[in-house]
Order: sequence, then C-alpha cells, then structure tokens
Amino acid sequence: MSPLPSTVMSRADLDFLLHDWLRVSELCGRERYADHSRETIDAVVGLSAELAEKYFAPHNRKSDLNEPRLVGEEVELIPEIAEALRRFADADLVGAAMDSRVGGMQLPYTAYLACMAWFYAANVSTAAYPLLTTGNANLLIEHGSDEQVDRYVKPMVEGRFTGTMCLSEPQAGSNLADITTRAEPQPDGTYRLFGQKMWISGGEHQMSENIIHLVLAKVPGSPAGTRGISLFVVPKFLVNEDGSLGERNDVVITGLNHKMGFRGTVNTMPTLGQGMHTPGGRPGAVGYLVGEENTGLKKMFTMMNEARLGVGLGATALGYTGYLKSLDYARNRPQGRSVGADPSSPQVMLTGHADVRRMLLAQKSYVEGALALGLFCARLVDDEKTGSPEEAATATTLLDVLTPIAKSWPSQWCLKANELAVQVLGGAGYTIDYDVEQHYRDNRLNPIHEGTHGIQAQDLLGRKVLAGGGAGLAALSERIAATCDRAEAAGGPAEGFAALLRPRVTRLIEVTTALAGVGATDPEAFLADATEYLEAAGHIVIAWIWLEQVLALGGRVDDDSDGFAAGKRQAAAYFLQRELPLVDAKFDLLAAGDRTTLDMRDDWF
Amino acid sequence: MSPLPSTVMSRADLDFLLHDWLRVSELCGRERYADHSRETIDAVVGLSAELAEKYFAPHNRKSDLNEPRLVGEEVELIPEIAEALRRFADADLVGAAMDSRVGGMQLPYTAYLACMAWFYAANVSTAAYPLLTTGNANLLIEHGSDEQVDRYVKPMVEGRFTGTMCLSEPQAGSNLADITTRAEPQPDGTYRLFGQKMWISGGEHQMSENIIHLVLAKVPGSPAGTRGISLFVVPKFLVNEDGSLGERNDVVITGLNHKMGFRGTVNTMPTLGQGMHTPGGRPGAVGYLVGEENTGLKKMFTMMNEARLGVGLGATALGYTGYLKSLDYARNRPQGRSVGADPSSPQVMLTGHADVRRMLLAQKSYVEGALALGLFCARLVDDEKTGSPEEAATATTLLDVLTPIAKSWPSQWCLKANELAVQVLGGAGYTIDYDVEQHYRDNRLNPIHEGTHGIQAQDLLGRKVLAGGGAGLAALSERIAATCDRAEAAGGPAEGFAALLRPRVTRLIEVTTALAGVGATDPEAFLADATEYLEAAGHIVIAWIWLEQVLALGGRVDDDSDGFAAGKRQAAAYFLQRELPLVDAKFDLLAAGDRTTLDMRDDWF
Repeated sequence: MSPLPSTVMSRADLDFLLHDWLRVSELCGRERYADHSRETIDAVVGLSAELAEKYFAPHNRKSDLNEPRLVGEEVELIPEIAEALRRFADADLVGAAMDSRVGGMQLPYTAYLACMAWFYAANVSTAAYPLLTTGNANLLIEHGSDEQVDRYVKPMVEGRFTGTMCLSEPQAGSNLADITTRAEPQPDGTYRLFGQKMWISGGEHQMSENIIHLVLAKVPGSPAGTRGISLFVVPKFLVNEDGSLGERNDVVITGLNHKMGFRGTVNTMPTLGQGMHTPGGRPGAVGYLVGEENTGLKKMFTMMNEARLGVGLGATALGYTGYLKSLDYARNRPQGRSVGADPSSPQVMLTGHADVRRMLLAQKSYVEGALALGLFCARLVDDEKTGSPEEAATATTLLDVLTPIAKSWPSQWCLKANELAVQVLGGAGYTIDYDVEQHYRDNRLNPIHEGTHGIQAQDLLGRKVLAGGGAGLAALSERIAATCDRAEAAGGPAEGFAALLRPRVTRLIEVTTALAGVGATDPEAFLADATEYLEAAGHIVIAWIWLEQVLALGGRVDDDSDGFAAGKRQAAAYFLQRELPLVDAKFDLLAAGDRTTLDMRDDWF
Repeated sequence: MSPLPSTVMSRADLDFLLHDWLRVSELCGRERYADHSRETIDAVVGLSAELAEKYFAPHNRKSDLNEPRLVGEEVELIPEIAEALRRFADADLVGAAMDSRVGGMQLPYTAYLACMAWFYAANVSTAAYPLLTTGNANLLIEHGSDEQVDRYVKPMVEGRFTGTMCLSEPQAGSNLADITTRAEPQPDGTYRLFGQKMWISGGEHQMSENIIHLVLAKVPGSPAGTRGISLFVVPKFLVNEDGSLGERNDVVITGLNHKMGFRGTVNTMPTLGQGMHTPGGRPGAVGYLVGEENTGLKKMFTMMNEARLGVGLGATALGYTGYLKSLDYARNRPQGRSVGADPSSPQVMLTGHADVRRMLLAQKSYVEGALALGLFCARLVDDEKTGSPEEAATATTLLDVLTPIAKSWPSQWCLKANELAVQVLGGAGYTIDYDVEQHYRDNRLNPIHEGTHGIQAQDLLGRKVLAGGGAGLAALSERIAATCDRAEAAGGPAEGFAALLRPRVTRLIEVTTALAGVGATDPEAFLADATEYLEAAGHIVIAWIWLEQVLALGGRVDDDSDGFAAGKRQAAAYFLQRELPLVDAKFDLLAAGDRTTLDMRDDWF
C-alpha cells in the first residue's frame, strides 16, 4: 500500500510542473548542469521532502509557541531549529544552486526552488534562515571580491556561517533614500559603521559560528537619496586571513520584534558602532566595502530579486500546505447532509457540500497557479544564466515584469487561500490544535517584507512595464498570445479558456498605454492606482499560467485514473471563469481615471 | 483645547448615524421609550465610551497574552475582566435595552447597539461576556416562564449571574440536527441531561455567582433532525426558590479551546451528566425545559438573530478601531516622498501617498458602511418592537433579509479592513507593539461563529429572499428605489451614485428569479453558489446604506469645517465606484449557471 499523500506539499504536482511542463531535465544538456539528470533532480527533491517532513515540520508549532528570547546580547532559539539547519547544510542544500567553485552543486535553479518549496511548506520560519544566507552569499558571489567569497561565502555554503541583509532603519522602511547609517572610511581601506538597523531577520542566534551582515550605509559626502548608498560586509566576528575567527565586531542586537507569526525567525534591531565591543581597541563596526562606493542599492537589488521570488514561493508554500491540510480535514470530517436530504440519513463528509468544494477549489486554483508561476520564473532564471544570448535576453525581459507579480500575487492570494483553509475547518481552524491558523498568521508577513504590496505595484507600473519602450509587456503578451494560439489549436476546454484570456490581455495593453499617457503629464495620477494595476496584471498572468498547465496535461487527460488531469482542468476553469473576470472592473476603474483616492485629503478622514 | 479624537470609536460618526440619519430621539415619542430623550441617549453613549476606554481597552492586549487557564474544574482569567464586567453591570448596561419589569432601562435598541460598539471596539473578548448574557436573558424573557425570568434573568441583569448558549457538539457544528445530548424527563417535571457540548464561550469562570447555560438537547423518542430539539436551562448551581444558590449541578468543563484570537473569551467544552457532581444524590445535569418539548431550535433562533447582529457589530467595531488606529499611525509616520519629489526634500507623512489613502479609504468605506447597516438593523428591531403594526410588519420583513447580511458582510469586509490596517503600518503592524494585528486575529473568528459565512448564504438564498413570495427582497428593493428617487431629486454626487446602484438592484432581482427557477428542479444547483449571491447582495445593501448616509448629510455639505461631509462623500464614492462594480462578475457567474464547484469531485482534488 502506498503511503498517504503528504499534507506538506504535493510531489505529484511538483513532478508535473518540473518535468511535464517545464522540462527541467532538458536543462541538463547545458554545460553548467551537465552533472545533473532527471534522476539526480528527483533524488534531491525527494531528499528535500524527507528532510522537510522529518526535521522541519515537527517543530513548526513549537517555534510558534516559543518565541526567540534576547538574553543579554544573545538570542535563544529552540534547539530543533539548529538541528534542522544542520541537516539542511549537511545535505549540501545551502549551496545547491551555487557554483561548484564555492562548494555548490550547480543544481538548476528551478529544481532548487522545488526543493525549497518543501522546506517553506514544512516550516517557513526555520527555512527563512537558509533563504537569507543564500541570498547573502549569492550577492557576494556576484559582486564581492574573490577574497570576500573565500572568507565569507564558503563558510556559509558549509553551514558554518549564516547571513543577513540589513536595509531598513527605524525611520526608513520602504524608502531607503532616508537611511542614516554612516560608514566612515579608514586609512586601511576598511570602514567603521555607526547606526541603527530595523526588521533584520536572523540578526542574532547561536546556530552558526559567525553571522555575516550585509549592510547598507552612507559614506559622508555621498550624494543624497539612493544614489549615495554603499554596501558593506559587517561580520559579527571579524574573520582572519586563515579563516579563523577574530575579534567580536561592534554590532549588537538591542531589541527583538515580537510578531503575529513567523515567530521562529528571530527579527532584530541591530545597533552598529555604539561601543558595546571595540574591535581594534575602539568603537565602530568594522565593515568591508562591496565593490565601489555609492553602488550599494543596485547590488542589493540583485539579492532582492532573488529574495522576491523566495518570498513569493514561501507565500505559495504556506498556501499550498494549508490547502492540503484543509482538504484532508474536509475529506474526513462528517458534517451535515446534501441539500434536501432526509435528516435521518448518514452525515456526508465536508467535501460533499458545494460551498466547501468552492473553498477548496479556490485554494487549489491559487496555490497551484502560484507554484507554477514561481517555478516558471525560476526556469527563466536558469535561462538567464545558461541559455543562448537570445534566450537569456528574453528571460531577463520577462523576469523584470514577472518578479513583482511573483512576489505580490502569492503574498495576496495564498494568504487568501489560508483564510479559506481556516474557514473550511470552521471552529477547529481557529484553534491552535490545527496548523492552518498558524499558516494564516505566518503568511500575513509576506505582503509586507521584501517590498510591500504597494511598492511592488510602483515597481511594476512605474518602472517595469514601460521600461525599454514597453519591451517587457510586449514580450509577456507575445508569450500569452502564443499560448492562446496553442490552446485554440488544441480545442476542448483550453480553447474556451483562451477566449476568456485574450481580450483581457488586449485590455491590459490598452490600459497600460493610456496610463503611460497620463504619466507623461501627471506622475502622481499615473501611479495612484498602481496597486489595482498590479492585481489585474497578476490575475492575467496566473490565468495564462493555468492555461499553460492545461496544455501541459497532454495524454494524461485520456488516461486519468488518479483524477490529476481532471483536477487541473477544473481548477483552471475555476480561475478562468470565476477569478479572471474580476480584472474587468479594475481596468474600467483605471481607464476611467477614477480620482477618488488621489483627491482624498488627510482632513477628510 | 479639545482632547484628541478617540482611536476606539468615532463619536462624531455615531452621533451622525443615530441622530442625523436614524433620528433615534424620535423613538422616544413611543410609550416604551418615554423615559428617554436625546439627552439620556447621549449620556449613556458617553458613559459607555468612558467605561470602554477606561476599563475595557487597557487590558485588551493583556488578555491576549494571558489566555484563560483550566485549573481543575475552574477557569482562571485575568482580574481586569471581572473588574470591567462589574463596571458594565453597575452602570445598568446588561439590561440597558430590556424591560423595566426585569430591571432593564428600556433604552432604544439602536442606542444600545451604539453603546455596545464602544465596548466591542475597546475589547471584544471582554465584551463578549455581556453579549452572551443578554442574548441568554432575552431568550428567557421571550420564551421562559415567569418563574424562570425571576430566578435567572433578574440576577443576570444585576450582573450576579452570566449566561451561555450551548448549541454545538463535537460531531455537530453547523448542522444541529446531529446533536446527541440527551434530556431524560423526570417525574418532578425536570430533566436530566447527558452529553458533550463544544465551542461554548463563557462556559466557566469565577466572575459571577452562577452561570446559566441554555442547552439544546433531544428528549428520547423525539422526531429526527431539528424538529426533535428541545431547549433547557441548565444552571451551574441550582437556584432555590428564594433565589439562593443550591447544589452544584453536573455540568463541568473538561477542556478549553486555545484560539488564534478572541483569547480573553474563554471557550470551553462542557460535559453534562458525567457524574462529576451529583445533584439530588445522583449523576445527570438538572435541566428545566423552556416552553414545550421539540420547539428548542426555533426559540434559539430568537437569540441567534440578536446574536448575529451582535457578531456583525463586533466585527464592525474591530474593523472600525483598526481603521482609526491605522489612520492615526499614517498621519504621524513620516515615510518617503511624493512621486517625483526631490530626494533631499523632507519626508511626507504616510497619508501623503495615494496608495495609503486608498487603503484608508477602503477601510473607511467598509467600517462606516458596516456600522451604518448594523444601526439601521437595530432601528428595525425597535420598529418591530414598538412601531405601528404596519411598521412592525415591514421591519420584520426587512430584518429577515438583512440579518444574514448584517452578520456576514462585516465579518468579511471588516476583517479585510483589519488586513489593510496591518498593511498601512507595514512591519510595525505585524508586531504586537501595535493593536492592529490583534484586531485582525480577533476578527477572523467572526465569519465562523454564530453560523459560518456559508450558512448565512444558505439562509439568505435558501430561506429568506424567497420566503413569502419574495416579500423580503421586494421590500428591500422598494426601500432602495425610494432612496434612489430621493438621490435623483437631490442631484449632485448622490444622483450619480443612484445611477450606479439602480441597475444592480434590477440585476439582483433578475438573478434571484432565475435562481428560484433552478431551485424548483435542482435544489443543489440552486444553492451551490449561495455564497457568491450573499456577497453580491451584501455589496448592494452597503452601497445603498452609503447612499442613505450621503443623503443624510443635508446642510453639513455646505458648512463642512471639519471635513466630515467631504469624507463621507468620498468614502461613498469609493464604495459605489470601486466596490459596487465587483458584483457584476458575481451576477454573471450566477446567471450563467457556472457548474465548476458543483461538478467538482472529491477525487479530483
């Protein structure tokens, strides 16, 4: 007898997306991935599933109930987190997608994200630590010196060091132009940093020998705004030339943030240069410049693009596991009867009620759509890195447009999925006896960090869709048109879905053009409803991704003993027929130039 | 200098709704309310505001951080809850809306709900105790014997006893037909009850001398289903004829539910008749029948209608206070600059960003719309109780249709408001340093208890709109048409709003008629998308309520030094122009008879 299907993630869906749709093993024909094959990819996905179920999932609730505590300068976490991270690092997963020169296994990024989905779904708070560390390491690999890579990245890949990204400050959240952390150049080429950071995840703990902070700061005399920001490596312990640890640096956690969810990920307020330690005999946090002065924000965006895909995938994973858990509950919970049934007849399971199926189908359409988008973007990252020059250029163009959507859409709709998962369980879903309420709380962070929902909207409309003469939107709409062409050729339900999708893409382009016209004369009006634009564009992208999935079903439709193909088609129908039409009202609003929010005055509230 | 406006509730808005719009003081011309006047009403609202701010708000977070604990048979709560409830009872608020014969002050129900809004907003977990007690008492006043009223209701009004309602059981949540608690008739006319109840709020605590449970149970030999349910009074301590407390009854709490929010309201699993106490020398919980056998569910519905309005108002109050707090934060938090501004110019407040104003305006439109609907329904309760026979009949007809909306709409959209409040605060909103995250967690209960969202939908479409040949919907649409007539006569923005509203009401009637046709042959298809119907009808009702508010502004529009009228008009514009159009896609779906959720099979998930 086969084991019960996991309620953490769906291996069947991941396999379908990776292989049937995205044909990841074809990537192994490229030099970078030559050591890999479908077998090695499946093995590492399987290993991730096993580690996630065995070492991550079991302490998910315990982390929630036992928040990190600041004791003196140190942070105490439950020991299961360290154990999980050790297992993760021992399986070479920190560097899974990195270059072999830094100790990585050069796994295709698409396969790597499929692995990470298991960890995020099992325990997003614990999985956040490696997310931060790999983001940090990848930035240094791309922008740091060889020495910085040797000194900081290699120990991260080995699991001995962990990393953070220190951007926000108490007075500067979404707008980094206002940071005030000061970096004073020293005669020896190093810098001394002074300031206060805020919202720094993983800023202190005892799970690694050293913590490598990547810190944004301003060198005195730099230009105002974001053009004057530089990036520094600030290790908790200085690292000697031979790799041994040196002095304790002057970066200390002076407070923790206590959160609604994501509680296992310690969130800290690091203070730099307050003299709580005195490296070299004097106060000031020793920092090492990455690249040139005043180029910090651009470098940080390398990491933030990766982090945005990671956050989107984390949101997706929480939505996904909530869906599987609410489905499992609904299949096994007797409650009520069908409409009009004899009251003395036996109870039916919750799935026997159309309204419960509606809530499950909505979740399925959100989480499987989001997962597919996340992996599609990962596939573009692989193309960007290893495709032909044309493939790479197209991938970059598409990624520019899709990244804010891949971050924001799952953060919005997989949170909605968790809201529905709670509702399926009813009163039980509101208690801590079941996981879904925690997923709902954990997921509420995702529309906030790594650029709020509104910031993603400004990025999409204010920068990405119009960049390069609208090249990104053109590339996207061409891709969607090509999918619609194939759907029409395929006939069946796909043809009907294409008929629903095409006119909305046309509308998206029309509305974008009209908004661009507004932007030429009134930039504030242009961006006032960027969020509505983001959400409409997001729904169109997910509808397209659903159509792609339907087309990838191929022969499964006729040989569908497990109902997989029927389920995919039904979820696609749900999304295309019931969710996609919601964009029309948003486009009407954008086209009409509704000024309600723009004209609202502070004193009218 | 006037004090800062409260961030608990808006007195200005309540005054506008009570007096300018609903003309509550006109009710004082009716005999029941003859002791009251605008002055007494304003005084009791003011007293409620004061008590809510002074005794309820300060321990809201403490309750959340210190969950009730079960110690043996007893439940420990933080002492501030008892203090708050004592102050509430001492101000005669338990019986504020009740008959003078039971010790009540016969306040108009509309004014009473305005008072309760303050307590819910200040601390919904603590305010839930009196909500349960008054619901219990009102049921006994309506259906109990004189002796039951004397013995149980009067001590509740005095604040010495509290009440619960015991409906659900572990195996029976939404469908009460499946309860199995057994009530065995005794020779002396009492009953002995045996069974297990679930999700019982206020089921045990030390804050009152006695707890009066109202328990649904089945007498052996009763008909199957809901027609065989009877209602019993089951006191924790038996009450002697002289009102003194007698033996401890055999009803004991055997477990607590630990929840995501609403933590100050202890939620219990009471066990009846397990012999943990032996009143009269033997096991079995002593119960006293209310009215006749097998009429219990209908009686309980009296209480549930009141409770649904209460839950809707509680959801509204949480949304409202979250709105006020996020507004306060946004007005005082500098962050970023206007689009295109010089980066060296000073930061603007969050309200300087159109996207933040969008999130505030959305909240305003939801919470002020929901509050107005709740008070409008309360006004109908007053008409039902004290109006002319025609007024009373119309009020009942309208209340039947509006009650499921007044429960579900705020539960959905004021939760959404809290989601937006968290978003306005960003990272800060996700921490326990601010209230909004708790409001969000607390509010998540409201779509679940007192009939889930889906149950309200079944009630509205399956019972209420078609009852009496569609009299409820006809009455509602006539009222809306009359409002539109006045709006057209008034001109200005109201006229434009009416033009948006009218066609949607027509559509609602058309779709209802079509669905009724489906129901005649296929009851399951008829109700499959009842939730979509509920949500569309809810948006239409709130749009109408907004138009009513705009018309009630009267001369304030021309003399608007505080911006109150401008704010109302802008929020109305937000709702009518940006929210109301969302119903079109729902009606399209319902009209098309989309079968996606209906046809979905369990094995396709």
